[in-house]
Amino acid sequence: MITRPKPSGRIPDRSIYERRESAVRSYARSMPRQFGRAEGVWMHDDQGGRYLDFLSGCSTLNYGHNHPILKQALLDYIGGDGIAHGLDLHTNAKKDFLDAFEALILQPRALDYRVMFTGPTGTNAVEAAIKLARKVTGREMVIAFTNGFHGMTLGALACTGNAAKRGGAGVPLSHVAHEPYDGYYGPDVDTADLLEQRLSDPSSGLDAPAAILVETVQGEGGLNAASPDWLRRIADIAKAHGALLIVDDIQAGCGRTGGFFSFEEMGFTPDIVTLAKSLSGLGLPFALTLLRPEFDQWSPGEHNGTFRGNNHAFVTATAALRHFWSSEAFQRDVRRRGDMLEARLAGIAAEYGFEVRGRGMMRGVNTGSGDLAGAVTTACFDAGLIIETSGAHDEVIKVLAPLTIDDATLAVGLDILETKIREAMADDYAVAAE
Amino acid sequence: MITRPKPSGRIPDRSIYERRESAVRSYARSMPRQFGRAEGVWMHDDQGGRYLDFLSGCSTLNYGHNHPILKQALLDYIGGDGIAHGLDLHTNAKKDFLDAFEALILQPRALDYRVMFTGPTGTNAVEAAIKLARKVTGREMVIAFTNGFHGMTLGALACTGNAAKRGGAGVPLSHVAHEPYDGYYGPDVDTADLLEQRLSDPSSGLDAPAAILVETVQGEGGLNAASPDWLRRIADIAKAHGALLIVDDIQAGCGRTGGFFSFEEMGFTPDIVTLAKSLSGLGLPFALTLLRPEFDQWSPGEHNGTFRGNNHAFVTATAALRHFWSSEAFQRDVRRRGDMLEARLAGIAAEYGFEVRGRGMMRGVNTGSGDLAGAVTTACFDAGLIIETSGAHDEVIKVLAPLTIDDATLAVGLDILETKIREAMADDYAVAAE
Amino acid sequence: MITRPKPSGRIPDRSIYERRESAVRSYARSMPRQFGRAEGVWMHDDQGGRYLDFLSGCSTLNYGHNHPILKQALLDYIGGDGIAHGLDLHTNAKKDFLDAFEALILQPRALDYRVMFTGPTGTNAVEAAIKLARKVTGREMVIAFTNGFHGMTLGALACTGNAAKRGGAGVPLSHVAHEPYDGYYGPDVDTADLLEQRLSDPSSGLDAPAAILVETVQGEGGLNAASPDWLRRIADIAKAHGALLIVDDIQAGCGRTGGFFSFEEMGFTPDIVTLAKSLSGLGLPFALTLLRPEFDQWSPGEHNGTFRGNNHAFVTATAALRHFWSSEAFQRDVRRRGDMLEARLAGIAAEYGFEVRGRGMMRGVNTGSGDLAGAVTTACFDAGLIIETSGAHDEVIKVLAPLTIDDATLAVGLDILETKIREAMADDYAVAAE
Amino acid sequence: MITRPKPSGRIPDRSIYERRESAVRSYARSMPRQFGRAEGVWMHDDQGGRYLDFLSGCSTLNYGHNHPILKQALLDYIGGDGIAHGLDLHTNAKKDFLDAFEALILQPRALDYRVMFTGPTGTNAVEAAIKLARKVTGREMVIAFTNGFHGMTLGALACTGNAAKRGGAGVPLSHVAHEPYDGYYGPDVDTADLLEQRLSDPSSGLDAPAAILVETVQGEGGLNAASPDWLRRIADIAKAHGALLIVDDIQAGCGRTGGFFSFEEMGFTPDIVTLAKSLSGLGLPFALTLLRPEFDQWSPGEHNGTFRGNNHAFVTATAALRHFWSSEAFQRDVRRRGDMLEARLAGIAAEYGFEVRGRGMMRGVNTGSGDLAGAVTTACFDAGLIIETSGAHDEVIKVLAPLTIDDATLAVGLDILETKIREAMADDYAVAAE
Repeated sequence: MITRPKPSGRIPDRSIYERRESAVRSYARSMPRQFGRAEGVWMHDDQGGRYLDFLSGCSTLNYGHNHPILKQALLDYIGGDGIAHGLDLHTNAKKDFLDAFEALILQPRALDYRVMFTGPTGTNAVEAAIKLARKVTGREMVIAFTNGFHGMTLGALACTGNAAKRGGAGVPLSHVAHEPYDGYYGPDVDTADLLEQRLSDPSSGLDAPAAILVETVQGEGGLNAASPDWLRRIADIAKAHGALLIVDDIQAGCGRTGGFFSFEEMGFTPDIVTLAKSLSGLGLPFALTLLRPEFDQWSPGEHNGTFRGNNHAFVTATAALRHFWSSEAFQRDVRRRGDMLEARLAGIAAEYGFEVRGRGMMRGVNTGSGDLAGAVTTACFDAGLIIETSGAHDEVIKVLAPLTIDDATLAVGLDILETKIREAMADDYAVAAE
Repeated sequence: MITRPKPSGRIPDRSIYERRESAVRSYARSMPRQFGRAEGVWMHDDQGGRYLDFLSGCSTLNYGHNHPILKQALLDYIGGDGIAHGLDLHTNAKKDFLDAFEALILQPRALDYRVMFTGPTGTNAVEAAIKLARKVTGREMVIAFTNGFHGMTLGALACTGNAAKRGGAGVPLSHVAHEPYDGYYGPDVDTADLLEQRLSDPSSGLDAPAAILVETVQGEGGLNAASPDWLRRIADIAKAHGALLIVDDIQAGCGRTGGFFSFEEMGFTPDIVTLAKSLSGLGLPFALTLLRPEFDQWSPGEHNGTFRGNNHAFVTATAALRHFWSSEAFQRDVRRRGDMLEARLAGIAAEYGFEVRGRGMMRGVNTGSGDLAGAVTTACFDAGLIIETSGAHDEVIKVLAPLTIDDATLAVGLDILETKIREAMADDYAVAAE
Repeated sequence: MITRPKPSGRIPDRSIYERRESAVRSYARSMPRQFGRAEGVWMHDDQGGRYLDFLSGCSTLNYGHNHPILKQALLDYIGGDGIAHGLDLHTNAKKDFLDAFEALILQPRALDYRVMFTGPTGTNAVEAAIKLARKVTGREMVIAFTNGFHGMTLGALACTGNAAKRGGAGVPLSHVAHEPYDGYYGPDVDTADLLEQRLSDPSSGLDAPAAILVETVQGEGGLNAASPDWLRRIADIAKAHGALLIVDDIQAGCGRTGGFFSFEEMGFTPDIVTLAKSLSGLGLPFALTLLRPEFDQWSPGEHNGTFRGNNHAFVTATAALRHFWSSEAFQRDVRRRGDMLEARLAGIAAEYGFEVRGRGMMRGVNTGSGDLAGAVTTACFDAGLIIETSGAHDEVIKVLAPLTIDDATLAVGLDILETKIREAMADDYAVAAE
Repeated sequence: MITRPKPSGRIPDRSIYERRESAVRSYARSMPRQFGRAEGVWMHDDQGGRYLDFLSGCSTLNYGHNHPILKQALLDYIGGDGIAHGLDLHTNAKKDFLDAFEALILQPRALDYRVMFTGPTGTNAVEAAIKLARKVTGREMVIAFTNGFHGMTLGALACTGNAAKRGGAGVPLSHVAHEPYDGYYGPDVDTADLLEQRLSDPSSGLDAPAAILVETVQGEGGLNAASPDWLRRIADIAKAHGALLIVDDIQAGCGRTGGFFSFEEMGFTPDIVTLAKSLSGLGLPFALTLLRPEFDQWSPGEHNGTFRGNNHAFVTATAALRHFWSSEAFQRDVRRRGDMLEARLAGIAAEYGFEVRGRGMMRGVNTGSGDLAGAVTTACFDAGLIIETSGAHDEVIKVLAPLTIDDATLAVGLDILETKIREAMADDYAVAAE
């Protein structure tokens, strides 16, 4: 079913990238092709190669590429000269989005949030969230967690754990303390207890926090999934210590773990939630920060941004909400497929002593080795499967297939993955045997 | 020619905004309409009102709304299932953009820059720029200027002068010193001399800077335009003191002041340039940071972001570059129209003792009073003209018409502005006479 | 043997303190007497009261008040017009001190340190230590520990755990991470393991440290004594991760725990050591920072201070070194008396379920309640015994008797303490029984 | 009258300094002798050399070395077993000091201050001052001035202008803005106007200040003396903008400029004043912070320190207050001698185009060259005169003779200075003529 990427007779001129694109580029290095079009779970390069996409823009394309319903909505909007850019002026597209978001997301979940349209990047939504928490509480310190990833602008970067990303700041990153995530010190240490102890101790050196910022599943950090118990404890601790609870749902939200939010049915309600990535549905830049009304203490324009109302994204997001979130069918499907995914990964993992991580359709295999995981994903790419790693040492192979993938195609991709793991392990044994 | 916005018989239900949109919204307050479609210089609300747009998304819509050539390019791309989102993978759309940017912008100006696709917001481009300057120099302090505006995420916000915006940070903003901009202390004080003295004095308390970050015209800060002499001095000072010169051309670039860059033909070349706003041409989120190759010292992925390659924006940006920047015609036109604009504003200003500010088609009138300027822009909006203020006290009425506006329509808008200024001044006299 | 403080017939006028001394005063509140003279273990107030001193200036008077040999040396020096103040010029007094410190302290312990005369306060010695560690490593973050106390100037305060002290800063305290001290999470959690894990994890959010700053016994933090094993682990971790190990021996050094340094015979050598408090022997302001020669990378005057060579303190310090540290006798005596102290405290503690803490003659009893401990120390003071509390909740009664106290007088003081604890506990039972 | 330092036949062993004293030592390098005793204006080295002291411990020995009255008071106190160290307990010595300070300093000047005994270093007094200002105002930013010097601990160092000192911090110094001091931009620019403009401009990037911290004469910064007009303006600006005015009188206070405080009779009253250096009179470590009662908002112990009540210093300070400050005689004498000093320096300066700087007996000559000034002071030292430089480039020769010097001896020292300047200038001409 996979069309192997074909080596073209003629090697196209790619010198423009070397000449003009900054050395900061990254994915283009491990997947050195030039892509032209994409639909559903498939991407096509300019030399006839076809690739199954198990990366989905790091969970930005939960509904696949160019979903026809979303695409048509956008074509109609543009064709009708719909407002493309209007700062934060009210538009028909904004109203439709707010109406749909209220009716299809908030009300069915009995959630009462105000919607803040931040600059259309996840990092901007996080910056807005921590600004507001600091303003509301009058405190400065934010608690984030080991292996957390929250963005690359200075405020969000301070909350990010990764040393290489942090090093890029060029200034010390302040006003944030990183505490151990669920399971960080192994199964015998309850890290919520540790946090509670430190916050309750007036001599611990940990200042009273404005916010606790947490991902329910750490996408970039290695697909660590916190338990509902632990998350409830963190929510309780936040409340007890006067801090706002911010759930960064940028990667785990929008259906990736089954529900629209990753924290549904866990028994707590965050004070602030950040969303981005799959929010527009089509991969268009879009981010927002949800606020409990009592904390919506912004002055007009206190946080702003030129692209904070991306109307094209409103249009596709509204279409996605209507199409996928009007009934339970989609969510049931995602959960079922997530179980199937877990089962397959568990089989592979059991064979090699790997560990399955994650939740819903945000799962991966911790191979314990960045070299091994990298070898596997490179081999997968050569076989037509786009898949990436995450984790502190890039040791976790993560499966972020579109949520809309059909079971058969999911199986095809997992077959490739399994094969490439087997081959890599065989190579390893071979090397070890020499 | 202007269609007065019509009071509709039936007042539409706008309660969703009160109920669900954060209090942070701003433009929607001073322009309380809901807009549906727009083309060229015109915006249309959902009750039949038509508005002439002298705001242009704060210079994001230099080519007007939904320019047909850009729009068609995007429709074709979407229709053909072009990649919408691909992280920073190479795509046909990216290649086309880089080719066009090299051929039409860099080469004709003999500029040698690498292009860094940052998150698609201006603030992200600024964050990337100052990160890199700190990395390259190993220094931490950045010099920004009084009344400068550079964005709302923590690193860029530290470079921003506005106290209300800064106050939103909730933490002290560090590692930046604000020095007086050109003319800040009046015509008799050369602020470049002041800066040179402080940087040359090892006891001034001003640490050696990683970068000097400057706008050639301060859009949000009140349309202060620095003189070429002063900018050259700043460039020389940066070089002499081992700092990188960053020109933030987010608002003044992309043709607003006549050339593609606002610093063209001034006799210096910035080390880093940030662009955003009108870069996509259609108002789509897009930002980039240009780097001299010798300073492109990024590690792969050291600064990243989910939406850092917005392919829809590549498509419209490429169309815009090809259509407007393949010849000198557009630039000549902008300059000519800028002169016309200046002449009209000078006439009004002379009458009331106001001051004309700005450069090219980025001009305004400093009325000396935020109340007055606000009264004028409100009256203009009621008369169908969208126009805004800027400056420390919102005292400057700024004209940011699309660059593509025809002379007659420009005159119509300026007529409204002039009339409303007259009326406001008459009211003032009336009040004063009571 | 104790002379009860006599209530004088006439209450002296103390209004000058209310009128002129800042509200920041503290000990004067819990011990509301005015003292005139002191010798050995005794302090005398101006109304004929005599007090046994189990506080010793928080370990600043390890040799008691006005030790006759130190006192005579100072009288001779002043009488002979010895240099009192000479900035950091060489003086006979400085030379004598350095000679004695080398011969009596460094050489017998095979320690090779350079001596840096900092401003004569402990906090200044700590500031110098962390400055140097940052300079040497080129890193900014310092690891300090829960419940650590290192001083009140901004750099040292950032390393201090106590929230009330930290709150006084008025600015966020940055560039320091507080990690759990030995035993912080109970006996089952090895906090050195936790630290090792976080420093070895490139995504933990804990930046690479310039230094690890540790007290071997936390004087202000509640007399927590780290085990030699844990301290060796910390020393190994510092070395493995390129950080300098700084032992803050300001309270635990100068004989308090038995040896001159608190880390002797533990199998590791700190890179930097801070000393102050009992260094002068007579209670005169004096502090120094010891540096491994390879880290003595200061430029001349890079850290300075008007009083950095306190010659009076040199004189008494030299006399103290010669008198107490020329043989093993004093140290043996301190250790023996420390054991005696421990035995007495253990007896009391066992009776009430309290916990004995500390090491050598730096011991205390954790009563578990700040109210209880405060009631006991207040009652002791009324009975003529000066004794104080420490700990996050002031719950630890600390015995910091002069090291020179004779066994009988030590017993007298401990009798008072025991009696007052019994009385307080009886009161508690009485209250509980009501 | 000067005894030339005699080259001794036998060179003493000084290797202990190389071996054991940190490379941070500074004065000992430019004055490579070992001193033994001192009285009045004279210092004696251990080889029979005698030196006239025009440095006075950088204004720490305003009453000369070992003044007999202060010395006798201290000998009596120590001989009588007076309390040497008692933390901040009330002592007879403290009461005497407070009584004398109130009666002799505060009341005659109609000043109402609370006295805060900080750690006995100037830097600690500054740290306390800015902490309190931040606490009282709830703001974080402190305004300090170009060329200001306030100490070396992290909070005070951030307020210090000198780049080499700042560089020692190893972390960026934050929460302080350095504004131009009086005359910084030459006689035509009123820097108080500049400050007023920036603070009144909500877009200047200068955050609302907690305090303005100023020296009336910048001792380390090159003896720049602010005009009373300018200082009054600064005081007014502080008040208008809700900031506390802190005068750092550590070097200029205690009589150096004529009055006890350097700001007397200038028509404004600081909110906070810091004192140290000559406060004890004998050169003993002592510092305090004076607070207007309404700002004495400290919690008990919120800022503390082991040596914060240096009783020996109380004793000598009290003796000094009684002896020198009970009548106007001393102040009149200092002023008269200051005029004499100015006249002599003006004569020298006129001859060579130098500039006389300073006020009272805190004066110097700006030679315009650090090399020249260094050559002169070195030659002076060889001729038996201890004198030092200050300023950003060490270009100012500063005369800080004891205030108690008799006119004839002052003339002797100035003769040496004049001769050595003449010789150095002749050498320069000779070099230039070659």
